[in-house]
Amino acid sequence: MTSNQTQGRAPRFDRVALLAEGAFEVENAKTAVGIVRYGRCRTVAVIDSTHAGATAGDIIGVGGDVPIVSSLEEALAFGPESLVIGIAPRGGALPEAWRRVVLDALDAGLDVLSGLHMFLSQDPEISARAAANGGMLMDVRRPPAGLPVAQGLAPGLDANTVLTVGTDCCSGKMSVSLELTNGALRRGLKADFVPTGQTGIFIWGKGISVDATVADFIAGAAEMMVVEAAQSADWVFVEGQGSLYHPGYSGVTMGLIHGSAPKQLVLCHLPTRPQVRGYDVTIPPLSEAVRYHEAVCQPLFPTRVACIALNTYSLPEDEARAVIAQTEDETGLPADDCVRFGPDRLLDALGASRAG
Amino acid sequence: MTSNQTQGRAPRFDRVALLAEGAFEVENAKTAVGIVRYGRCRTVAVIDSTHAGATAGDIIGVGGDVPIVSSLEEALAFGPESLVIGIAPRGGALPEAWRRVVLDALDAGLDVLSGLHMFLSQDPEISARAAANGGMLMDVRRPPAGLPVAQGLAPGLDANTVLTVGTDCCSGKMSVSLELTNGALRRGLKADFVPTGQTGIFIWGKGISVDATVADFIAGAAEMMVVEAAQSADWVFVEGQGSLYHPGYSGVTMGLIHGSAPKQLVLCHLPTRPQVRGYDVTIPPLSEAVRYHEAVCQPLFPTRVACIALNTYSLPEDEARAVIAQTEDETGLPADDCVRFGPDRLLDALGASRAG
Repeated sequence: MTSNQTQGRAPRFDRVALLAEGAFEVENAKTAVGIVRYGRCRTVAVIDSTHAGATAGDIIGVGGDVPIVSSLEEALAFGPESLVIGIAPRGGALPEAWRRVVLDALDAGLDVLSGLHMFLSQDPEISARAAANGGMLMDVRRPPAGLPVAQGLAPGLDANTVLTVGTDCCSGKMSVSLELTNGALRRGLKADFVPTGQTGIFIWGKGISVDATVADFIAGAAEMMVVEAAQSADWVFVEGQGSLYHPGYSGVTMGLIHGSAPKQLVLCHLPTRPQVRGYDVTIPPLSEAVRYHEAVCQPLFPTRVACIALNTYSLPEDEARAVIAQTEDETGLPADDCVRFGPDRLLDALGASRAG
Repeated sequence: MTSNQTQGRAPRFDRVALLAEGAFEVENAKTAVGIVRYGRCRTVAVIDSTHAGATAGDIIGVGGDVPIVSSLEEALAFGPESLVIGIAPRGGALPEAWRRVVLDALDAGLDVLSGLHMFLSQDPEISARAAANGGMLMDVRRPPAGLPVAQGLAPGLDANTVLTVGTDCCSGKMSVSLELTNGALRRGLKADFVPTGQTGIFIWGKGISVDATVADFIAGAAEMMVVEAAQSADWVFVEGQGSLYHPGYSGVTMGLIHGSAPKQLVLCHLPTRPQVRGYDVTIPPLSEAVRYHEAVCQPLFPTRVACIALNTYSLPEDEARAVIAQTEDETGLPADDCVRFGPDRLLDALGASRAG
């Protein structure tokens, strides 16, 4: 991986301890929940003294009997290879207690993956300690140096590239891409996930936060990752970011679309959200949104919206099923909530048939 | 100006000396030519020892009798307030000779505006010298700190916001925006130019290089500048960047479009360029490009392409006039080369009538 790492090797990632002190709850731990639910790594312990003694399953409903412990020392008993810092402290600076945990983790031989706004690899004490221990620091918000401007390589790839796009931010794009990736892998297909945001990077152990790159390199970062994934995968599921309808983030979305040049799009939507959150922008009918996304790509490469991924988590099951059926009627496309009901219907729509 | 400056005050900008050592030629000095041709500042001298003794008019065909001199010392005789470094050295690092010029300029009481990749304001020796002399350093490639995510403010502005968009990079967007701004000012209108790239910033003495911002803040930077310009101007001409058809830079373009929310667009095109330069992307017929740009904006705010600005510099005048007429036929919109033939036709198309 061209990387946001201090050293050449990739971070060890099979067994991680997750630092979530005071924050291991469904509401404010999208990252922790994502890692426990979808992590390619195995979470061996969660550090949160406020829930010590309970299990992940008790507190966030996923993760089963993953233990919650009160300190790094206790977590070390479960044999982690890496410490993952998936929460941000108030105020931005690194609290002294967290600095201690990072240094102790490095002394214990762990790698450290961090989503902090301050970069561990730029902290003299921490980077010296990592070097002394042969530990790897990965700042997932930090774009790698030397990103290229996109060269227009992605449209020519043989792989089936699939990007999730959304009618708004936080519409489920990352989870949908992961469900599709994991579903394709279960079908025996050579599939890979391309993480483009910090939670996705924690989950998959690699990737680039495209929204943290310098604007000129959004598409180049996406292209680089997709080209790399396509070397070994037939199905490349790219994590979407933002939304073309989002007045703040549409540039990131556009760069990601053009850089990854997906052959198919999956349109993600929260049926309970009529407007872009926080903006005076009405989300158009989904059939229009389908045409809009296809039209935006058309001058650069052919693509199609293959299906609709609805995020129905706040609806009772009968209402969820009803809105899925309505969506199919309106758009003429297969629709489903693949987090809730599994990815098979959407994989079929994409043509990702079980490997012979 | 929310700014990329070391200190609060804006750079002095009425009389500038332009450092263009070894590079003051039409071909590789887009920045120098832009400053001499369009600069709100007056260029009092150009420093390029390879052309010393000649005038700007002799060498680049604009700038009349602006003297070209061989050293900063000679340039100081013409009373500059600021030194503008509009060229980049090979290799990226600051050559020792240039460092000397910067330090001497600061010692002579000048401000320094720099387009170098390395930031003068981060160089300890140079920033100390600036502080000692009360001089201002402005690194035009450096985005200001604390940029916001766009809030969706621009669609609600009363001002007539006009953005140039292009079928490709380097299609004349900056020059067209400047010709329209200056033409509107000549008509007695309250007009302002919003620079979004380094040459534009040098020309206007303020602005933000939106392609150098972190991706999340492209639209926010554009919005901030447009909102500020609209406080005192009725006509706000925003410098376009990139192209929605450019596989590398479309994200910047999209963010700039959505952040500035222009009420009208001017579509810039090089009639001699059938493909996006360096990419396997065919530029569609202009009538399609008009519809495409309007469609991209439609879900967020209403806009229209008001006219077409053709860049005919490489064509003889009769061919230029013919292609302008053909373009009007094809698109049904007014078209002109406003750098060559003046901005009046396009200003009329925009409804920018002479102030009563």
